[in-house]
Amino acid sequence: MDTLAPAAGTPHPLDDALRLDPDGDGFAGRTTPAYANMVGPFGGAIAATMLAAVLRHPARAGDPIALTVNFAGPIADGGFRVNARPVRTNRSTQHWYAELVQGDRVATSATAVLATRRETWSSTEIDFPAVPPAASIARLPPLERAEWTNRYDMRFVHGAPTGRAHAPADPGSESCLWVRDEPPRPLDFASLAAISDVFFPRLFLRRPKWVPVGTVSLTTFFHADAAMLAAQGERAVLGTARSNRFGAGYFDQSAELWGDDGALLATSHQVVYYKE
Amino acid sequence: MDTLAPAAGTPHPLDDALRLDPDGDGFAGRTTPAYANMVGPFGGAIAATMLAAVLRHPARAGDPIALTVNFAGPIADGGFRVNARPVRTNRSTQHWYAELVQGDRVATSATAVLATRRETWSSTEIDFPAVPPAASIARLPPLERAEWTNRYDMRFVHGAPTGRAHAPADPGSESCLWVRDEPPRPLDFASLAAISDVFFPRLFLRRPKWVPVGTVSLTTFFHADAAMLAAQGERAVLGTARSNRFGAGYFDQSAELWGDDGALLATSHQVVYYKE
Repeated sequence: MDTLAPAAGTPHPLDDALRLDPDGDGFAGRTTPAYANMVGPFGGAIAATMLAAVLRHPARAGDPIALTVNFAGPIADGGFRVNARPVRTNRSTQHWYAELVQGDRVATSATAVLATRRETWSSTEIDFPAVPPAASIARLPPLERAEWTNRYDMRFVHGAPTGRAHAPADPGSESCLWVRDEPPRPLDFASLAAISDVFFPRLFLRRPKWVPVGTVSLTTFFHADAAMLAAQGERAVLGTARSNRFGAGYFDQSAELWGDDGALLATSHQVVYYKE
Repeated sequence: MDTLAPAAGTPHPLDDALRLDPDGDGFAGRTTPAYANMVGPFGGAIAATMLAAVLRHPARAGDPIALTVNFAGPIADGGFRVNARPVRTNRSTQHWYAELVQGDRVATSATAVLATRRETWSSTEIDFPAVPPAASIARLPPLERAEWTNRYDMRFVHGAPTGRAHAPADPGSESCLWVRDEPPRPLDFASLAAISDVFFPRLFLRRPKWVPVGTVSLTTFFHADAAMLAAQGERAVLGTARSNRFGAGYFDQSAELWGDDGALLATSHQVVYYKE
């Protein structure tokens, strides 16, 4: 019912946002209204853009293992360039550095590690949370003034933003939710990178006061390979996020993203600025 | 008894390892035998070197908030160059990119975020572990063929490497230890960055088989400001580390570093290659 399919020939809004046209030795891209945040674009869309620039580069070798995106300055609505270069290519790993530039200023920097993965001994130490299925939970209504929240179907098991003037009595900042692209889109590395940033600022789960906040650095480790992402398809992934520490203007957040079959797809860690 | 003070005028081994001589628009450094690992230098010393190059750069503004170090290739014993440049300087934050180069190849890349911190509302959500004091626990004997382990006084509460052919029955990979520089050295951002990499590979706590392993990307978030580090002085910090997932040649590790007064100083996350 809330999963309107795009018209034939129209790209998914995320693919539209991730459009990168070869431009000299880099790419030309632009922000899209579909992923607008209160100020500038949704950080997850920018993280996905930085990764996409690496993955579409002709020198690419391997799939993502680690991605760090540093939000160095505001991104104005409109065009930008992304320059990505392989820093070093080894037999089974490749290291990248990328910058998103507007005018003559770097707005975002990133490093990425790609690798060719092989079967090994494996083990997951943390447990898939005991949660009700996504279909049994109502979708969170998109938030006003954050257009990007229309692009995700989010169903909270706990830790939903209340939208009220006072925070819940719960002393912790953990959220747990089912989340997928809206409209549905097969999961890939870029969309998983974007989803790693869908968690609302943990500060607002702890404290009702509205203050400016913004992610300054986001690191995502990819545990899934391409086959695991393909197996997940368009179905919602389960995300959990919590903070360890808020202090002196910065807080951290650690998150896990799980497939609905209980496979750990990614873990993600970020540090966020807050005023006061 | 095991805290021999260095001779007067002799720098601490860590300060010797972190020696960087201005060289053109970068720095010249070199590996030191004191921090040798089985192959190449201890990664923590390299992480500290990358951060030191940023903190000693004349353009530096602020203290570290986030550091990501990518171990792109092997580092040969001997000299290297570190080139660090500010990517963007804002009113209260500064973003950096740095590379460690040997010959014409990049061996290590890094990004760092510095900031001027201000007092704000604060809260720590995770609890300082209930542990016996460092003085009540025996020091772990340094490991053969890993000279750098002589440079740390490590006292394990649990999860010590067994050195035996078989792993303990404990199904988890968590370690908890008191750790400080040996000989003692006042804690600063660089030494904290190094300590964020002292945890032995989680794989060996889970599986007795020896295989080649190596950190490929390490991200540390600094929750402490300079005053908190100064207050910690030379006393041991408490470190905890565990893995979430091992699979297809890579595992992750998340760690916390606490002051002995219960203040969370840093959280750190890495992804590690393993063969088989």
